[in-house]
Amino acid sequence: MTDAKSRESMFTIEATPVKFGAGAAQDAGWEMARLGGRRLFVVVDPEVQRLGVADPVLASLRAAGMDLIVYSEVDTEPSLDALKRAVAAAQEAQPDAFVALGGGSTIDTAKISNLLVTHGGEIMDYVNPPVGGGRKPPSPLRPLLAIPTTAGSGAEATTVAILDLPDLKIKTGISHRYMRPAQAIVDPELSRTAPAAVIASAGLDVVCHAAESFLSRPYTTRDRPATPDDRPPYQGSNPVADLWSAQALRYGGQYLRRAVQDAGDLEARGFMMLSATMAGVGFGSAGVHIPHACAYPIAGLRHEYRDPGYPGSKVFVPHGFSVIVTSPAAFRFTFSADPAKHIRAAEFLTGEQYAPDDQEALPSALLQLMKDVGAPSGVAALGYREADIPELIDGAFKQQRLLAVAPRTPTHDDLQHIFRESMHNW
Amino acid sequence: MTDAKSRESMFTIEATPVKFGAGAAQDAGWEMARLGGRRLFVVVDPEVQRLGVADPVLASLRAAGMDLIVYSEVDTEPSLDALKRAVAAAQEAQPDAFVALGGGSTIDTAKISNLLVTHGGEIMDYVNPPVGGGRKPPSPLRPLLAIPTTAGSGAEATTVAILDLPDLKIKTGISHRYMRPAQAIVDPELSRTAPAAVIASAGLDVVCHAAESFLSRPYTTRDRPATPDDRPPYQGSNPVADLWSAQALRYGGQYLRRAVQDAGDLEARGFMMLSATMAGVGFGSAGVHIPHACAYPIAGLRHEYRDPGYPGSKVFVPHGFSVIVTSPAAFRFTFSADPAKHIRAAEFLTGEQYAPDDQEALPSALLQLMKDVGAPSGVAALGYREADIPELIDGAFKQQRLLAVAPRTPTHDDLQHIFRESMHNW
Repeated sequence: MTDAKSRESMFTIEATPVKFGAGAAQDAGWEMARLGGRRLFVVVDPEVQRLGVADPVLASLRAAGMDLIVYSEVDTEPSLDALKRAVAAAQEAQPDAFVALGGGSTIDTAKISNLLVTHGGEIMDYVNPPVGGGRKPPSPLRPLLAIPTTAGSGAEATTVAILDLPDLKIKTGISHRYMRPAQAIVDPELSRTAPAAVIASAGLDVVCHAAESFLSRPYTTRDRPATPDDRPPYQGSNPVADLWSAQALRYGGQYLRRAVQDAGDLEARGFMMLSATMAGVGFGSAGVHIPHACAYPIAGLRHEYRDPGYPGSKVFVPHGFSVIVTSPAAFRFTFSADPAKHIRAAEFLTGEQYAPDDQEALPSALLQLMKDVGAPSGVAALGYREADIPELIDGAFKQQRLLAVAPRTPTHDDLQHIFRESMHNW
Repeated sequence: MTDAKSRESMFTIEATPVKFGAGAAQDAGWEMARLGGRRLFVVVDPEVQRLGVADPVLASLRAAGMDLIVYSEVDTEPSLDALKRAVAAAQEAQPDAFVALGGGSTIDTAKISNLLVTHGGEIMDYVNPPVGGGRKPPSPLRPLLAIPTTAGSGAEATTVAILDLPDLKIKTGISHRYMRPAQAIVDPELSRTAPAAVIASAGLDVVCHAAESFLSRPYTTRDRPATPDDRPPYQGSNPVADLWSAQALRYGGQYLRRAVQDAGDLEARGFMMLSATMAGVGFGSAGVHIPHACAYPIAGLRHEYRDPGYPGSKVFVPHGFSVIVTSPAAFRFTFSADPAKHIRAAEFLTGEQYAPDDQEALPSALLQLMKDVGAPSGVAALGYREADIPELIDGAFKQQRLLAVAPRTPTHDDLQHIFRESMHNW
């Protein structure tokens, strides 16, 4: 609401319609019937399927008269090749609607399959430039019903899908408003079987989504775009996104420890799922920045880390851990851009009060949360040495789309400082 | 998140995509092109058109290559006959999309025109039972771009359209998720010409939407519906609706007085418009109850009141005034259902702190706000005498859809008490 003609004066906000609550997944058939689906490509996380979590959802869809093509060869943090296989299967199936049942990797696999089935072309055509062609889907995709089984990515609420390009040693994404699922069902009972390490990593991702969005540069400080087409998806903090981000921080502080400690604590796991969706809406409008920009090379550059708490044998850095490890140093760096808002973020997380100049309030709240839920202690624990820092910096700088909404723009030296501080957080 | 199988365990939330900010209305053409519209039925408030407020929006639509059929015979608080005329004009025009540019009456006229153009039939077929046939639209309507020019109804964010049935002496509505506009543009600059009385009445409506939603019975206290189809649109308070309602209360307390006092205070009018949209999302999920149930007969029974601050010569009770006059007595009555939440609502409105047993905290905050913005002093000032109370009670009882989410269910005697207390609030 500034009058300066050269600065942005508006923001947009969109949220996936959500049905939330214990037992909500049993409405999957009803919701899909409402969306008009008949022949469904159902992307299911293999672990979710193995544990029987998918069964009642598939039964609900079948009871509503749907034909299901179930695809469960989902890659965790999917690579381009894994996505190509999913797309090929979906193109073979020719569904009129999609269902995703799993975490962010599963939902993203369904989003990309839907994009390619609806509009054709190659995955790389649509990947964000400069890595990909930045092609935009010309019209809405087929309906996608997203049913998360972890409390993390917020993928059910966002317009983005992330993919790993091992040959290029980077992770990147496809981002467009038509990628947003048509409906989300968020059912705490589905997270009952998620291992503690998955809940911890995913929950720390939620906390970072919320903190980065809440502290992103105000939308009014961006230049006004020449046309509405040029308005970026990540617009900076605004009064509506702040509401979602603030509440997600409160829930993260209140419930993540309990959700990790006790798989049977459905209240805590439920509020973390709600928190994940809320943070997804928030960062879908405001955006994430430094910790997420640093996370891309941390996850993409070396594939040496194997988390002892994760199922399967894949060697990879869980996304939430890759994000959280640089967050204390990142928020130490951004503190001067808006001290009062950093203090409020810390207060949301802990419920405590801090002095207005306490630069360590937010970093120390994050460090305590990381320790309490068993996060890796820093970038070094994920397989990197000091000598890797130049390559990590280069990778982070490639994420200009994210760094553009940082409240304080990091130089090369700033990122070096952040990575160094983050090698060993304790 | 209760486990009791007989109680509701889930809630849903949906929000219209919103573009918010000064100058946002100039994107009307771009947004409508994105929605696929070419031939538009544009419903414009006559006062908005006369004052030239509509011109830049119409110019933006024309510049995007759209054909416009402009309809400005909008009735304030529209009667069935006025709506029939609008529907006939829309059916004659056969547009592929709709635009509404005005207050709640204008947006509701566009919603109902869109419903009838898309799915045929008579208006009364779709009106909520028992008054109407309760027919449900079988599939989505054509795109509707809603551009509010007041800060009140939240109609841009809701699934409901209200109509007046003078022959039956009642107001009622049509409610369905497909009635929700496809996109809203909320531009503070459009409210610049709204008279102070319009801002006051509309703003008090916002405050009531937010307070009633925030204090509606928790969704977990409703019976679980037999099927998802039977889940009512007004579900009771829930963690997501509460976020929107709380922020709308804060903005109402902070900005309504300024917005009424100074038409040029675009910051205050802007935050009231944002507040209206937020409250619309909140009550679209949680619901409104006693003050709104009482407002229907207050507005529908006698048509004797003419507000000195409203443009035009129509004799009617502005909706916000019809709602706010019973709110102090209504919240005195509901206090015992959840004292702590009533105190929080008062604190959001005033920024002050109250004793936990202060039953007068919220009523006195509302009374002070009413006085400060020049609201009528009570039901008597709107043309009613004590002898009218039995008929007012009967009218309020017809709104079972609303009373079902009251935190404490009023008996006949309770409503009598509320109307009596509300005859003269000061």
